[in-house]
Formats: sequence, structure tokens, C-alpha cells
Amino acid sequence: MTDRLLHLNAFENFSPGNISSGLWRHPSDRSSEYKTLRYWTSLARDLEHAGFDGIFMADILGMLDSYRGGPDDALRTASQVPIDDPVAVVSAMAAVTERLGFAITVSTSYEHPFLFARTMTSLDHLSEGRVGWNIVTSFLDSAARNLGAGEQLVHDQRYDRADEFLEVTHKLWELSWDDDAVRVDKQAGVYVDPAKVHPLRHDGRWYQVPDAFIAEPSPQRTPVLFQAGSSSRGQRFAAEHAEGLFVHGTRPEVLAPIVAGARDAAVALGRARDSIKAFAVATIVTGETDEIAEAKYRDLLDYIDYDGAMVQFAGPVGVDLSTYDPDVPLADIESNGAQFSARFFASADPDRVWTLREVAHYMGVGGMGPTIVGSGATVADELERWAEVADLDGFNLAYAVRPGTYEDIVRHVVPELRRRGRLRPAPDAAGGSRTRSTFRENLFGAGATRLAADHPHWRLSL
Amino acid sequence: MTDRLLHLNAFENFSPGNISSGLWRHPSDRSSEYKTLRYWTSLARDLEHAGFDGIFMADILGMLDSYRGGPDDALRTASQVPIDDPVAVVSAMAAVTERLGFAITVSTSYEHPFLFARTMTSLDHLSEGRVGWNIVTSFLDSAARNLGAGEQLVHDQRYDRADEFLEVTHKLWELSWDDDAVRVDKQAGVYVDPAKVHPLRHDGRWYQVPDAFIAEPSPQRTPVLFQAGSSSRGQRFAAEHAEGLFVHGTRPEVLAPIVAGARDAAVALGRARDSIKAFAVATIVTGETDEIAEAKYRDLLDYIDYDGAMVQFAGPVGVDLSTYDPDVPLADIESNGAQFSARFFASADPDRVWTLREVAHYMGVGGMGPTIVGSGATVADELERWAEVADLDGFNLAYAVRPGTYEDIVRHVVPELRRRGRLRPAPDAAGGSRTRSTFRENLFGAGATRLAADHPHWRLSL
Repeated sequence: MTDRLLHLNAFENFSPGNISSGLWRHPSDRSSEYKTLRYWTSLARDLEHAGFDGIFMADILGMLDSYRGGPDDALRTASQVPIDDPVAVVSAMAAVTERLGFAITVSTSYEHPFLFARTMTSLDHLSEGRVGWNIVTSFLDSAARNLGAGEQLVHDQRYDRADEFLEVTHKLWELSWDDDAVRVDKQAGVYVDPAKVHPLRHDGRWYQVPDAFIAEPSPQRTPVLFQAGSSSRGQRFAAEHAEGLFVHGTRPEVLAPIVAGARDAAVALGRARDSIKAFAVATIVTGETDEIAEAKYRDLLDYIDYDGAMVQFAGPVGVDLSTYDPDVPLADIESNGAQFSARFFASADPDRVWTLREVAHYMGVGGMGPTIVGSGATVADELERWAEVADLDGFNLAYAVRPGTYEDIVRHVVPELRRRGRLRPAPDAAGGSRTRSTFRENLFGAGATRLAADHPHWRLSL
Repeated sequence: MTDRLLHLNAFENFSPGNISSGLWRHPSDRSSEYKTLRYWTSLARDLEHAGFDGIFMADILGMLDSYRGGPDDALRTASQVPIDDPVAVVSAMAAVTERLGFAITVSTSYEHPFLFARTMTSLDHLSEGRVGWNIVTSFLDSAARNLGAGEQLVHDQRYDRADEFLEVTHKLWELSWDDDAVRVDKQAGVYVDPAKVHPLRHDGRWYQVPDAFIAEPSPQRTPVLFQAGSSSRGQRFAAEHAEGLFVHGTRPEVLAPIVAGARDAAVALGRARDSIKAFAVATIVTGETDEIAEAKYRDLLDYIDYDGAMVQFAGPVGVDLSTYDPDVPLADIESNGAQFSARFFASADPDRVWTLREVAHYMGVGGMGPTIVGSGATVADELERWAEVADLDGFNLAYAVRPGTYEDIVRHVVPELRRRGRLRPAPDAAGGSRTRSTFRENLFGAGATRLAADHPHWRLSL
């Protein structure tokens, strides 16, 4: 990579708690302001000013209720609950920014592609081309239960339906309206030329959409497509659809084959190797010096909520971890999920005995991803090493405390990365530019507002 | 009514065309800016400054395609197409205002109440209590076709399902989380007290929602509930649910029994007679003098698009009006819809021969509602007369041209109504107040942020 730019997204959610557990209790934390416009407009302004590429909004549609057989610990520890709809906050952030992108997580399992496509087109209109979509198929039984889907589809079937969902949205976004369909010709009395608007005639297994799209094309048409699946079915899905791949791992060496696999699969489908931008989740704790950063980290550790970490961990592990002593080694728990997770954490440090307490200690600040602690230079070194080893294009930076984590990154890490030529020039710097930019241009360069010509979706037709 | 305040909403939609037809072609019209943030933030600021209570956003989920057997004329004349999602634009408008309400139209037919309730709660959080919901059940076959619902439910069944939809949303908004459920107690480590969050255990005909809501209560909890149904089933629905009734008619004498019927039905359910605020649609063409206003109106008439008016009229009439000569009297067309519409227009003027051309002339500026033409004083007289005769609480004011219609109302009509004590004091006037206000307080008075105690929904329990 050597001189490749690094792209930075804030990894946020519309909730008082995301992947770190219990840190809302830190004296400096202001996560309870999550439901105010001021929190989001101020964050968006600051991140854009610093040169971030986007805000990545996670979402879930049910409570995490595998721990102690119910949602009580999730509620008490604010583990991704309460949670609001990320769609609702985008236009306010767009109103105070010009270049920042907004990737929002929406499941293909509970919305109809026709309505969803219109919502995204609307946001892309209002933001002048700055919307992205993190495609998820949903894994929570609690969501399926309350959304009337009864039993969930099995994993691979969810992906099959998602494939068709993406087929429908592509037809709506890219194929239904020609570029010159909207004429707004007051003299001729033609707002839209009907000959340039085409019915979908889509008659699939999951969806029937006979007619044309009801919204006109937006600047990007298709939002920037992100995906995070790591199963082999998920990887195939990414190769078919994703422009951004969101990965998590304890070390860059673990991510390297995953990223290489995604790029190989994309190339096998005729796409350029760099047509997928790879983002790793990371949490940064930084300050003026390594010592100050280390002290901040030690202070944060005091606020980790063990139960909160277990709430987040219990879902993937698939057993109720409240019935185990915190000092039991993960490897001693007999479930496929526990064994899988034991291998996951062994990759971080094979010599450590990964008890549940140690897992909570690790996950409490930064979840399953790395927590990078140090001065701006130390963190920049580490980000560059991760990018080099794993062939990454950027990072989804989670917060430990709000908004302090982002303030620290902007103060200490961003200037260092910019000095090293790893970030785009600041919007208001000499040589920088105040020009508007679409989200896809942020990631793929000026002019790259539309879906790339080698994207597999272009094989579709009406 | 005598000294009752009048409430004003702008009747808008997220499209270049609403109920007037062809007027986007007027030289002053800027409807093609509908997809920009600037249009909406500027409109919201101006309306709030003038003392409007809200913006009422209409919506449809399919194209109007009864005329000439397809959507071509709707597209050409921008008859409610292209159309974006009103949910997307609310937070941006909320960010630049403090008191203006936002009523958005959402159908109960194509969304799940669990997800929809969260979206509204999110907007109510961000706007600090300024969201309303115009409840519709959808009537368009084109929407049902593309949203996978196949054949539509018959009319009364749609209302039955809507009743249950409202039951679920009430439980989510009002009953699932106690007022003191969210503690944010950093010392005790309790963000939410799980004992104060209650599962719905809703097991109905259309929806199963066993668990608790995932979002915390917003300032209003329930958005202000609007409804526009005029059938007897629709009227019963309004009495059960609505806080705002949206009616349209050619003369106030026609509306009087409809409004009285709604109030009677509400009283029969134990509600106060004024627990439903009645809004009539109206389009105002105004200027410094009656003569200037009349000249403006005559100028507007030149831009009416006959086909566009017929696109909008063809749906309710239920026959393809393109096969009829424009000079055929409506009463001569043999369909129930045509006969119903003939009576509707006869109520405006029984002596006029209501040919299709005359209908287009009437509907082209202001749709099925009245177009009130004159100086500020003349218009204020007429609005007062309508309110007096029909027992109205306010008006949903449609535009003829954008944003000129609203600019004219603000300049000529608002000061006159304010002089007469019909509007709340301007936010920045002496005696006025800059204090924030929720949407429900705008309509029902300071302190009335929550659903009234006599609302039938309070009979529901978990």
C-alpha cells in the first residue's frame, strides 16, 4: 500500500451504547445526549472538519437477550438499547456538512425493497449524494419474533433473499429512470419524459415489482454499498455486491486472508482488486504522549461493566454465560460458539488464559476489535501497520466515551496521519478544498459518484 | 367559535406536484427544488417565523395510473410523481426550528408497526416533540401491486388492520416504558431500570409483538394523530383515534355535518367535543388588494394542465376519463364515482354545468378544496366564515406555486389574522415567546404535550 490514503469513518449508533460496555458511566461520557439533534450535528461538523470520510451507523432491531435469558442486563447496561432509527437523523447531519458520508445499517429482512429504495434515494437527494448502506440480513431472534416473521429464515436463505432484494433495488435505482428522464421543461409542459421511465417487470421468488420506481434518480443513484459478512456465504455476497467491506479481528494478520479472500472473489467476478474498500473496526485511546494515553486506558478499564460485555458476547457464543463463573476459561465451555470464540481470542494472544473475565476486559473497551492505545504517532504507526499487513483501506473508529474519543482522535491522530500524507487535505487547509463531494467520491476519488462499471449489478437488466 | 384561534399548516408533499395541476410551469414556481435541503429548511424557517403550527406532508406509494390506462400523464405533468419519502426530511427541518410541527403521512398497510413506531419516536426525540402522523390505509392498486401485497384488502378490512396497527403502536409508545424507566444513573450503573420496561405480549390477528419496545419514550410519546377518512368506517376510525381531522369540501356548509358528525362520534366515545381539531384544505391566492389577487388567480389559470387535473380526478371517478370529450358533463358519465363527483361539484355551484373541462378548471388550482382569492382582509373574512360555519379549528393550506403561495400568505393573510386575534402571537413579537413548543401544545395549548386523558387508546392495557 505504501502511500495509499486511509479512510476514516466514525462507527456510531443511535443509542447510548455501542460495542464498549459500561463506559457511559465514565464521568466525561455524554452518551445520554444521543437523542438530541445537537449531539449529531456537532459530531458531524467536527468529523467533517477533521477530514473523516463518513459516519457509519450500526443498528439492531431487537434486544440482546441471550444473557440471563432476557433483556434485563442489556437494558440496565445500555447494551445497544434503547436504540432509535438511524434513517431519522441523516438529513439534519447533511444540513450542516458538505462532504461527510452517512452509511446506515438496514436489514433486508424486514423492509420492502420498493419503500426502502425510496427512503435511500430521498436521503441521497437531500445530502447531494452522501448516503451509504450497510447491508445486513439480521441475526436476532428477538427482531424476527416482534416483526412478525416468526421463525427466522436459515442463514443461507436470508442471503438468497438479500440477493434478490439487491436485484430489485438495483433495478429501481439504476435501470428504471434514464439519466435524461427528468426534463422540467416548462415551455413544453413535460416534467418527466414518460418514454424514459421503465417498468421493472420484476417477478422473483421473494418480490414482485411490476412497475417503475416512483422517485427520480439521486446523485449517486445507488448508495455506497457496505457489507460485513464473514461466513463463506457472506463473502460471496460481498464479492457480488459490496463496495465497502467491514471486518473485525484482533490482529491484522487475522484479517489479511479475509481481505485477500474478498478481493480474490471480486476479481473472479471481473471486478478490480481495489473495487472493494476494506475497513477494520478499531477503538483508539490517545493523548499527548504514550503515557497519558495508557493512563486514559487504565481509567477506562475501571468503568467496564462485566454483565454488559457478557450481554454482547452471549449472542455469538450461543449459551447463557450467566451460568458460568467469570473465571472459567472460554475453552472449557462446551458449545461451538465458545470454541469458535476461544480461537478468536487466542489469535489476539495465545499465551493468555481467556477466561470470561478476560474476555470482558478485552471487549469492554472496543468490543471484538483492537483497542489501539498511544500518542498520535504511536497510533498512526499502528494504523499504518494494520493497513499494510491486512491490505486495509481504512477504519471504522468506534468510541469508548462520547464525544471524547473522537475529540482525542481529531486532536492527536488526524494531524499525524495528515502529516504522513495518509489523509486527504483538510477541507479548509491550503491545498484543501471546500468543494462538495459525494460519499463514493470520498472513497474512490473525484468523479466516481456512480457505481463502478465493473460492478456485478450491471449484468442485470429490465 | 367567535374568538377561537385558527391553526395553520402548510399542506405539502415531497414531490414537484401536489393537488394543483400544471402550475410547476408557472414562471415563478420553484417546485423542481423539492429535492434540496435548502427548499425545506427555508420553508420551515419562514413558516415558523410567521406563526404556522405545522407542515403537513402528504404522500402516496404508487403512481396515479387510471388516466389513459397508465402513468405517462402523471409523469409528464408531475402529478404527485416523482415523490420522495417525507420521513427523510423531518430532522433537517427540525434542526432549524423550535416550534413548528411536522405531520407526515404513513400508511398502515405496508409497514410493520414495530419499525414504524421506532421511526416516529426517533423523529419525536430529535424534534423535541414536534411530530405528527397522518394515518392512511392506502387506496392505490399501484402501491399494493409493487409492495407485494397482491390484491388489496377491501376497504373495511384495511381499517380493521389499521385499528390493530394503532393498538400496537399505542402499546409501544405509551405502555411499554414507564416514565421513570430511563435513569442514566452513573453511580448505580443503571441506564434503564428493567423492571419499568414491559413486554407487549400482543398476539392479534395481523400482528404478533411479544416483547418490549426497543426505543425509549419521546417527549410526546404518541405523535399527534391526524386522519382524513370521510366514509362512515373512516369516521368511526377518526372518532377512535384522531386528534386532528383533515376534511375537504367545496363549501363550509358541506363540511359542517361532517365535522359535527366526527365530534358527535368522539363525544359518544367519552371524548371532549374539542378533542378533535378539524382542518379543511384550502388554497389561497392573495395580494395587496382584491384586484391584484384576482389578477394573480387569472394568471394561474393559464397554467392549469387539463391532463394533470384528469390524472388526479380519474382515480376517485374510477373510469378512464381520457375516453371522454372535455365538454361532456360529469353527470352524463355512467359510473358511481362520476355520479358521486357530480354531486360533490354541484355543492360548489348547482347552476354550473360541470363538464370535465370545468372540473379541471376548478381542480387545477387547489384540487378538490376551495381556492380563496382576495386581499388579506378578504381571505381572512372567508377563513373566519369557513371556520364559523363548519366549526373548523384551522386549515391545511396547499400551494398553487412554490414558494410564492406561502410567501403571499405570510405577507398578506397572516398579519390580518393576527390583528384579529386569530393566531398565536408571533414567536418574536412583544408578548410572543421564543420558547420551544411541542406539536400537540401548538394545537391543544401549553402543557398538552401528551395524548389527552379522554383518548380511547387509554382503554388499552398490556
